[in-house]
Amino acid sequence: MRPVAIVGIGQTPVREHWDAGLRELAVQAVWQALDECQIDTVDVFYVGNMLSGTLTGQEHLATLIAEYAGLTGVEAIKAEAACGSGAAAFRQAVLAVASGAAEVALAVGVEKLTETSTHKTTDGLASAADADYETAMGISFVALNALLMRRYMYEYRYHKSDFSAFIEIAHRNAVHNPNAMFRHLVNRDQYERAKMVADPVNLLDSSPIADGASAVVVTSIDQLKRFPNRPIWVAACEVSTDTIALDNRENPLWLKAAERSVHKAFKTSGLTHRDIQLFELHDAFSIMSALSLEGSGFAERGTAVRLANEGHFAIDGRLPISTFGGLKARGHPVGATGLYQIVEATLQLRGQAPEAIQVPDARIAMTQNIGGSGATIITTILTRERL
Amino acid sequence: MRPVAIVGIGQTPVREHWDAGLRELAVQAVWQALDECQIDTVDVFYVGNMLSGTLTGQEHLATLIAEYAGLTGVEAIKAEAACGSGAAAFRQAVLAVASGAAEVALAVGVEKLTETSTHKTTDGLASAADADYETAMGISFVALNALLMRRYMYEYRYHKSDFSAFIEIAHRNAVHNPNAMFRHLVNRDQYERAKMVADPVNLLDSSPIADGASAVVVTSIDQLKRFPNRPIWVAACEVSTDTIALDNRENPLWLKAAERSVHKAFKTSGLTHRDIQLFELHDAFSIMSALSLEGSGFAERGTAVRLANEGHFAIDGRLPISTFGGLKARGHPVGATGLYQIVEATLQLRGQAPEAIQVPDARIAMTQNIGGSGATIITTILTRERL
Repeated sequence: MRPVAIVGIGQTPVREHWDAGLRELAVQAVWQALDECQIDTVDVFYVGNMLSGTLTGQEHLATLIAEYAGLTGVEAIKAEAACGSGAAAFRQAVLAVASGAAEVALAVGVEKLTETSTHKTTDGLASAADADYETAMGISFVALNALLMRRYMYEYRYHKSDFSAFIEIAHRNAVHNPNAMFRHLVNRDQYERAKMVADPVNLLDSSPIADGASAVVVTSIDQLKRFPNRPIWVAACEVSTDTIALDNRENPLWLKAAERSVHKAFKTSGLTHRDIQLFELHDAFSIMSALSLEGSGFAERGTAVRLANEGHFAIDGRLPISTFGGLKARGHPVGATGLYQIVEATLQLRGQAPEAIQVPDARIAMTQNIGGSGATIITTILTRERL
Repeated sequence: MRPVAIVGIGQTPVREHWDAGLRELAVQAVWQALDECQIDTVDVFYVGNMLSGTLTGQEHLATLIAEYAGLTGVEAIKAEAACGSGAAAFRQAVLAVASGAAEVALAVGVEKLTETSTHKTTDGLASAADADYETAMGISFVALNALLMRRYMYEYRYHKSDFSAFIEIAHRNAVHNPNAMFRHLVNRDQYERAKMVADPVNLLDSSPIADGASAVVVTSIDQLKRFPNRPIWVAACEVSTDTIALDNRENPLWLKAAERSVHKAFKTSGLTHRDIQLFELHDAFSIMSALSLEGSGFAERGTAVRLANEGHFAIDGRLPISTFGGLKARGHPVGATGLYQIVEATLQLRGQAPEAIQVPDARIAMTQNIGGSGATIITTILTRERL
């Protein structure tokens, strides 16, 4: 495979964007990314999105957004892998360039969750689960995470308040990210008093329903001289899957797909856990932070919550996570999230993160985007130097 | 790019499958394709589908189908490009193998349109058009095609009954395809008496709402010795796009995306129009057959309907089209259609088509899958010998 590098990035703030639809949001991110690398077209155009059909009656989204971005004619395809759609689109862009079919590829993730009623959005998000064997029973996506969290607390003897550490980290970092949805601190007291959503998942355990778009331009090693930005290298981008339904898993607290995709990413890149300096993980719910850290091998089983409380994952800890606020505080426009993570890791590796959240001398970063309750996991490793 | 070849195919009959859901249909096609090439897993797994979220409340479809096919763990991503989703998934499979990221890739297209009310399905299909500027005005997808057909008749002075030739060809070929939905002949008299749907599009101008799944396994030139079947080579698979909304096009009767994707496919393969021995085109409506033939350069503007009436596109004509019945008579389970076309072209090139519809000594075939009213067009050229 040809080496592939990121040469342009763009993102909108994550908000309830009542003044912009899918196409307006996506085009903002696309134009930012194109402007940043001083090009006006690309060879292929991937869109990561989960719910445009269900929530806004718009399928065929990639071609539509290409058109509104002024790129009519370009190859355009949408990639979907539930909340992992953003990184899925990125994976396709990397493959297109690696194959030689394209020299410059763009992946944009976009989601508009506030277009309709919260009820309809909740239903839509539940379509990441198994429609015949999970959601048909009336369970929502939050409730699935509640089952996981309760089991984890029971199995490893944690109190609910122990999870506060993850929330505090995310909010502390988001304060410095102008694109984050929640730029305020949260303390343990607030966490303990937060409204319950699906016991034991409370409002602060949950990432917010939000709108946003983020975009990345990748190119091949042969084209780098055309681009003004320092290239950030894609050392690996690997996808693995597990059963969709939790009850089909041997151990629902073990994210096999995380283990496998991280293993593949390390094999592809030749790197190991010790090399990773920051980890943009998929904290859609606080339990997912714990399971992702453990499944990915950054914490022993049942220890992630303890390590969080000991400061390991803070911005000045051994492995900073959610450095721009994560899904929890930056916000989680589902199909865009994977590309927000990649944009943020790119800023870290370029040394362009706001000072308070810049990981010093960041050279190697990992991102992990998750679809469903760990059913599709896409792990990406980005590096400042070519390996 | 590494040369890529098709080594396994599978398909279900196209029907109203009241006894099977999305996953059952898809798994049937996947297993057929895997069995045919005597393997039990693949490296990457793409699903082409348009409406699973809207019609059945199931997104995250690729991982779900991988699980039900017994392939849990494998990389899985869904590709969507409206009715072009099937060939979009195929394109991703080809890129994954061409890049070297995968040695064996599977693309399965599946659609279940009879899971819900016809009204909801009609709404869903309209999401291939522009939700804000077309469907919001109340126009359906059939009505968009009606506008095109009426304009074409006016511009090139055809009578409605002239279009019958396309329907007759499709049905005549479908008689011999055991997987086709409509295996009966249609004559001009029946065509003229068919119920009107959206004037001038009548029932026989329209491909049927249907369920089905089709699958293709591709591999790299380096792995061919593992596979028992004669490889069929992917000489080109090229995507181009146009505006989604018809009123944004300079000339709605000219499918620019067809022109461009065919041009790219010829450039990639080094072939020309004269080399193509059969053309599986996207006859979702009879007007689309005409526009596809003209935009692709197989007929001068305004002449495709006349050539059809002169027998050029019959199974024994100069360029046979819809050799297994096409979307019109084989049926059009939208996200699966592009892969049905590729499966059928593969059967032709292997010499495995039923005798009455086998194109003699078929060496080079083209397929063309269209999303929306020509907004996304994916043209594939397959060859019996490696070019």
